[in-house]
Amino acid sequence: MTAEQKTLAFVVYPGLTPLDLVGPLQVLSALAQLDPGYRTVVVGATKDTVGTDTPLSVAPSHTFDEVPSPYAVLVPGGTVPTLRAMADERLLAWLGTAAAGAELVTSVCTGALILGAAGLLEGKRATTHWMFRDLLTGLGATPVADRWVEDGRVITAAGVSAGIDLALHLVERLAGRQIATNVQFAIEYDPEPPQGGLDWANQPYGDLKPLREHTLRAGLADNPELLGKLLAHT
Amino acid sequence: MTAEQKTLAFVVYPGLTPLDLVGPLQVLSALAQLDPGYRTVVVGATKDTVGTDTPLSVAPSHTFDEVPSPYAVLVPGGTVPTLRAMADERLLAWLGTAAAGAELVTSVCTGALILGAAGLLEGKRATTHWMFRDLLTGLGATPVADRWVEDGRVITAAGVSAGIDLALHLVERLAGRQIATNVQFAIEYDPEPPQGGLDWANQPYGDLKPLREHTLRAGLADNPELLGKLLAHT
Repeated sequence: MTAEQKTLAFVVYPGLTPLDLVGPLQVLSALAQLDPGYRTVVVGATKDTVGTDTPLSVAPSHTFDEVPSPYAVLVPGGTVPTLRAMADERLLAWLGTAAAGAELVTSVCTGALILGAAGLLEGKRATTHWMFRDLLTGLGATPVADRWVEDGRVITAAGVSAGIDLALHLVERLAGRQIATNVQFAIEYDPEPPQGGLDWANQPYGDLKPLREHTLRAGLADNPELLGKLLAHT
Repeated sequence: MTAEQKTLAFVVYPGLTPLDLVGPLQVLSALAQLDPGYRTVVVGATKDTVGTDTPLSVAPSHTFDEVPSPYAVLVPGGTVPTLRAMADERLLAWLGTAAAGAELVTSVCTGALILGAAGLLEGKRATTHWMFRDLLTGLGATPVADRWVEDGRVITAAGVSAGIDLALHLVERLAGRQIATNVQFAIEYDPEPPQGGLDWANQPYGDLKPLREHTLRAGLADNPELLGKLLAHT
């Protein structure tokens, strides 16, 4: 790390959804390869390997303590463990300090709920996974149904795969359109969803509603006050 | 694991590109959550944590020995370490046995080169990352410039992010279109590349050519015979 390098810090906590993390990490690590003015780091409470919501385990490169002042912070989401992480004192303490000095405070999917728990969405327009979007109101934010939502230095992405789009937007913001296009070629991001785009008029909310209920009840079982706050506006 | 469960095995080796792995793993783990007839596992030579081409480290859930007969195999790609993995004896030995009995043999990005090194692309139509696609000829395959290429049980995807499209295609093949659509909603895969789709008439091959050369020369420094074979048709 050189004195001039800007550090982009990606947060790891146990049980996260790895695509929320790895999509943007791959994109911004490609930026760091093309532009030595940036470096990416993965930060966690410890460097221990932690589980995810898939059979893959992951480990950070740095502890929170080692990266007190990042240029940018990205918080990935998940299901039950993400709701639990809304009350993770070490995570919230680091996030409060790190975000206070950061130029960019970003999230993917329900990572926005963690930003909200740290008080970082108060008065902001924001988004998160579509199934949890209405919860943002209880955290002081105005929910917006966009792929990503930029409100000053706070930029939140929609669910899981939206982190790739968010990250390419960040590359363009940080390094310009040509570099962003080169990164897009490097990850060959020319999507062809086999089933087409999402048909929001036919969203399977009924099929997935039990998952939302389980996620909220299990994730906030020890935190009825926060659960009530989140559900007060839904 | 029940007797009827079909195992979808995702390969880990040191230095891989994590998005190649995590995109499809997230998609197919969502399938496994919706349909208990499937389970996903992440396999490696050992369960040790290994580095990737980003600051994230990853660890498999199982060793090769523990998963001798998967229903499906997926091999992710990368840069220099992937070329090196083309001569990894433990990986190739497992892949030869596992793929022989598998119903689906798949790859993302330059993972196709590893399938080729194991002799699995002989006579097949296949694809890989666009910068390395011409190398497939030297492995006995016919290169095809599609997002993913299905030739019987061998299905190969284009670069990095194409693994998500491949995986949603696999979900539809395995479990039907409604489940695939539900998985697509779960990962909110409704891509909006901020810079638009890739403009193949203006691909930055010149900018990226040194990366290709470095990858081949460094990755196959100890393997001049294979390097010659790959370059013979380019």
